[in-house]
Amino acid sequence: MAVLGLGLMGRALVGAFLRAGHPTTVWNRTPGKAAELTDAGARPAATPEEAVAAAELVVVCVSDHTAVRELLDRLDAADRDLLAGRVLVNLTSGTAAQARENAARVAATGGGYLDGAIFAVPPAIGTPEAVVVYAGAPADFERHAPALRALAADATTHLGEDHGLAALHDSAVLGLMWSILNGFLHGAALLGAAGLDATAYAPLAARTTVTVAGWLADQAGQVDAGTYPAGDATLETHIATMDHLVEESAALGVSTELPDLIRALAGRALAAGQGGAGYAVLVEQFRRPAPAAGHGAGE
Amino acid sequence: MAVLGLGLMGRALVGAFLRAGHPTTVWNRTPGKAAELTDAGARPAATPEEAVAAAELVVVCVSDHTAVRELLDRLDAADRDLLAGRVLVNLTSGTAAQARENAARVAATGGGYLDGAIFAVPPAIGTPEAVVVYAGAPADFERHAPALRALAADATTHLGEDHGLAALHDSAVLGLMWSILNGFLHGAALLGAAGLDATAYAPLAARTTVTVAGWLADQAGQVDAGTYPAGDATLETHIATMDHLVEESAALGVSTELPDLIRALAGRALAAGQGGAGYAVLVEQFRRPAPAAGHGAGE
Repeated sequence: MAVLGLGLMGRALVGAFLRAGHPTTVWNRTPGKAAELTDAGARPAATPEEAVAAAELVVVCVSDHTAVRELLDRLDAADRDLLAGRVLVNLTSGTAAQARENAARVAATGGGYLDGAIFAVPPAIGTPEAVVVYAGAPADFERHAPALRALAADATTHLGEDHGLAALHDSAVLGLMWSILNGFLHGAALLGAAGLDATAYAPLAARTTVTVAGWLADQAGQVDAGTYPAGDATLETHIATMDHLVEESAALGVSTELPDLIRALAGRALAAGQGGAGYAVLVEQFRRPAPAAGHGAGE
Repeated sequence: MAVLGLGLMGRALVGAFLRAGHPTTVWNRTPGKAAELTDAGARPAATPEEAVAAAELVVVCVSDHTAVRELLDRLDAADRDLLAGRVLVNLTSGTAAQARENAARVAATGGGYLDGAIFAVPPAIGTPEAVVVYAGAPADFERHAPALRALAADATTHLGEDHGLAALHDSAVLGLMWSILNGFLHGAALLGAAGLDATAYAPLAARTTVTVAGWLADQAGQVDAGTYPAGDATLETHIATMDHLVEESAALGVSTELPDLIRALAGRALAAGQGGAGYAVLVEQFRRPAPAAGHGAGE
């Protein structure tokens, strides 16, 4: 295969392919990144078109969508039919719309396109920790899945035909990550305002986070089923303690934005008659645009 | 000891005290809850004042702050000096201000007061999973810590003298819990709008959540140190992908409220010249009230 883009992640991808025994041709826009990879067995190419010509599977991992677009321009200018019969796998992060744009461009040249998203830090590539998901034509995925498993043996997944799905997955996972960090940092700010160290709070916060991770499969089942049994606590019970969080934050001069949003979403579900349901009923609030300002709380 | 309030949690507390060999007197406002506890060795009291008179440590676990207030009124009416020399431990959830109000009332009668927060479901009380934190005079805590360890052997912690600290901890932990669930449900809504099942997303979401839990100790260290080295990604890098999350949500007709808040907080840090710092720098945004509407994004 060929790997275009030899940043930290690109180099990790090449390393994993080489360790799995795949002949790998590499290229980077600015030279000098290929040396250690060449020592490990990679074949350096002088141009991206030379790298592409050497392989049926072309993995692109560059800085951003603009760099992907420029690379496609360059390949197109070199040889309009270069990608025909090959599959380009783009692991550069971008939006769903950008993925679909890339797919259409590659399809127009007779090539296949898979858009992927990596859930791993570079050192984890090729280890059981890595998760890489792909979106695009199933045939393109099946053809190259054996090679792609070198990057994430246990978790190389095809999401579906829509090329935008990998980027959406990436956004969803990042949104979850920021939500957790924000929840933690807001709590640390709240406790800090009362004189407590974040370090003392961290073990309880980490324990809580791991506990909630264990609830997600059940929450997901409720979301898919469209029924939200209350279990331990109804939304109404949650709301009473949400009000405490808003009050405490305000009393200590800490930002109330995060608690206000938590409370507003729950308040809208309550106003919709869902106070007796379990927490997962809030997915119905997330599914629609927020009501116009001034009707936020909905109560 | 005495336990006042025999709801699901109160009964679990009594069970743990009895299993640890502590003679326990119990009372509940509505009768009929004590039968199985009496079989297990608890001594039922006909009135709360009778229960209090039987013990030096009085644990209160009732429905809400109003019920605590009514209970204190009733004890006060029965015997103004009833709590003198005893320690009342309140495990009813409430706000920091309510805890301080209770503490002042009990102090006025010559009693000690600890406010506690339980981080466990009732069946976990007395197991290594349970975490219970306490706030109030260290001497009151030290005196009864051996007995209180029956509820949470490994995680019976004194937070500090300020009686509000346990309630604040409770709010911080709940805020974290809601943040995680909201992050997951927003992602499920986003992927659902593109035709993907939440159930298929849940394993990746759970894995992400556990991974982020492992970062919290480091984030906390940065918060306490007031320095935020970027490590893997600067805030500026995060912001580029936050914009994707906002765009994807808007494109699919999903609520952008959560992504907008994530983006606005980061935008304010960027405007403050902190774009090169790591994510934990956002604690500085959480520490202050939000700017007036219309200046939210700050860029």
